[in-house]
Amino acid sequence: MKVIVIGGGIMGMSIALELRRAGELEVTVLERSIPGAEASSAAAGMLAPQFEASAPGPMMDLCLLSRMAWPKWAAELQERSGVDVGYLPCGGLQVAFTEDEVHALDAKIAWQTAVGLRAELLTGAELNAREPRLNPKALAAADFPDDHQVDPRKLMRALAVAASRAGVSFRSGTVRSLVEKDGTVTGVDLEGERLEADLVVLAAGAWSGLVAGAQVDPARVKPVRGQMMELQLRAPLFSRLLKSANGYVVPRADGAVLVGSTMEMVGFDKNVTAEGLSRLLAAALQLVPELASASLTSTWAGLRPWTDDQLPFLGEGPRPGLLLATGHFRNGILLAPITARLLGQVVRREKPSVDLRPFRYRRNP
Amino acid sequence: MKVIVIGGGIMGMSIALELRRAGELEVTVLERSIPGAEASSAAAGMLAPQFEASAPGPMMDLCLLSRMAWPKWAAELQERSGVDVGYLPCGGLQVAFTEDEVHALDAKIAWQTAVGLRAELLTGAELNAREPRLNPKALAAADFPDDHQVDPRKLMRALAVAASRAGVSFRSGTVRSLVEKDGTVTGVDLEGERLEADLVVLAAGAWSGLVAGAQVDPARVKPVRGQMMELQLRAPLFSRLLKSANGYVVPRADGAVLVGSTMEMVGFDKNVTAEGLSRLLAAALQLVPELASASLTSTWAGLRPWTDDQLPFLGEGPRPGLLLATGHFRNGILLAPITARLLGQVVRREKPSVDLRPFRYRRNP
Repeated sequence: MKVIVIGGGIMGMSIALELRRAGELEVTVLERSIPGAEASSAAAGMLAPQFEASAPGPMMDLCLLSRMAWPKWAAELQERSGVDVGYLPCGGLQVAFTEDEVHALDAKIAWQTAVGLRAELLTGAELNAREPRLNPKALAAADFPDDHQVDPRKLMRALAVAASRAGVSFRSGTVRSLVEKDGTVTGVDLEGERLEADLVVLAAGAWSGLVAGAQVDPARVKPVRGQMMELQLRAPLFSRLLKSANGYVVPRADGAVLVGSTMEMVGFDKNVTAEGLSRLLAAALQLVPELASASLTSTWAGLRPWTDDQLPFLGEGPRPGLLLATGHFRNGILLAPITARLLGQVVRREKPSVDLRPFRYRRNP
Repeated sequence: MKVIVIGGGIMGMSIALELRRAGELEVTVLERSIPGAEASSAAAGMLAPQFEASAPGPMMDLCLLSRMAWPKWAAELQERSGVDVGYLPCGGLQVAFTEDEVHALDAKIAWQTAVGLRAELLTGAELNAREPRLNPKALAAADFPDDHQVDPRKLMRALAVAASRAGVSFRSGTVRSLVEKDGTVTGVDLEGERLEADLVVLAAGAWSGLVAGAQVDPARVKPVRGQMMELQLRAPLFSRLLKSANGYVVPRADGAVLVGSTMEMVGFDKNVTAEGLSRLLAAALQLVPELASASLTSTWAGLRPWTDDQLPFLGEGPRPGLLLATGHFRNGILLAPITARLLGQVVRREKPSVDLRPFRYRRNP
């Protein structure tokens, strides 16, 4: 069986690798640029469902399942590729600077501990003991010891090596349209060349609504710009993911600190703006004032695939022969292992280990 | 007569070109990197003595003479090189956001108009009429219609072409030391090679105190870091130099906006920092709120040569055979035409057209 995957981002690459694990499928990834050229490499790489979630539900469950799968997935990927993906079990602190934010943290900790997750409110001396460089003006923080990080750029390089070694084929170019026969998708027109496939997996992130013939409504997968910044410290000052109402900082082991992120509906504009950068800097300096002297090494922006209900599209697409793995918004890196597993199950016609109904394309007909 | 110029920045290049105008001198410029690699290209290019000066005096007079020389100098340079140096008679507004700042502007306008300069306080509707995109929270601004701008990167390219065409020789490399005979400087050791000269002109900016044998005290020429940022607008929103207590913005004709600048004594560290950038962004957004959506295109830092009394060293150096043209701090681009003229006069043993006593190296023995 031949499978074509459209998009060489975190989703396309993870799925392609998964589909080649048993070795029986022919898998080709189509990518306009190079693997990880867009949002996947722009991400900070937080594996942090407890940070991200505002309520329990199918999305939170999916994120938790994927977080659980991460350590083994990272280790296997590292073994297959020989590339260290920077998986770091660092924990995270969500920091409150106002009384209202403290109350919101209380509520979040309550529902998260109720479903069995580890989460604890830290104040004063406890907080200072965990992260002494955190702004002393912080009133409290929720400690999420199970939210971790990976380095998305290393991850994409590891995936490229592992997928290639596993026998995934790669083609560069822009998909002009899907090819169909009697209403069923049977392949892809790649810049004029027809490639045949038994199944096509659309994993084009924010660009998923632009593939002609896919019948994915562009209004249902929209780009949301996230501006990012990398600072460099002489040596690490803190070890946990730190997040406030204004942004977050992700400390790498080498003293680099990623700062994110804006959420802007500005179409496919990937510019870094004065205002965006200004907000990132304010967020970073509020969290860790000593970042003031850190060097700016890089700025960039990525386009996350947003959906109205902020649930991804997983599995059956709008047309027979077409599967979707897109719309992961802020959680693409986190959701890679579970998405790859689920799409593998759908492709092999196994029963998905997660109920995919909340993630169907047709959920809002 | 052979002259060696140490430093291919704005000073060294302007002087070298001046010395070749009559064609009788042999002139060699020594530069570690490429012409304009350091502070000269990092500058914003404001030709703005009225902005910069806090009081009348020999420095203000020197700056005004140089500003006066700029239009003709720029035109000649353009003619000799074929390169447009971006000389733009744009005028400048120094903007007050507090009552104290308004009073300071009043005082500045008073002493400047007393010496015959054009300067006027604008408020409310007048201000809005001049620059409608200026923050409406501005209380007042001093209008300096004779403060202008040039593009320092274009300027350095023009100087490189013009100097080369005029017969200036160039050598790449690091000066190991000056060569002397009986206490008089007779040449330069360029990475082991001895180059002879009748006169050596030291124009190495912030690095001038590091040239072995020059006897320039490193404590008297210190690097002061200036962090800079370039934003890009789709189209220009304002046309004048705008300056506040927190920084300045320089609008190029093509919609680029330069934002400057910090003043930091951090040695030869050229990093751009979180705090520095944060200040620049705050200054820019305070002056022109609509810059919020401008794209960040570049960040950098330069090292300005600072002197204790903030007067440059011009003419006779600490040793016979050695001339100085350094320590111009924030006014290097502005002071290029007058510095070149004066050094030309000193080299040719003519009477300098400006009294050089305030600018002698030996002024603080």
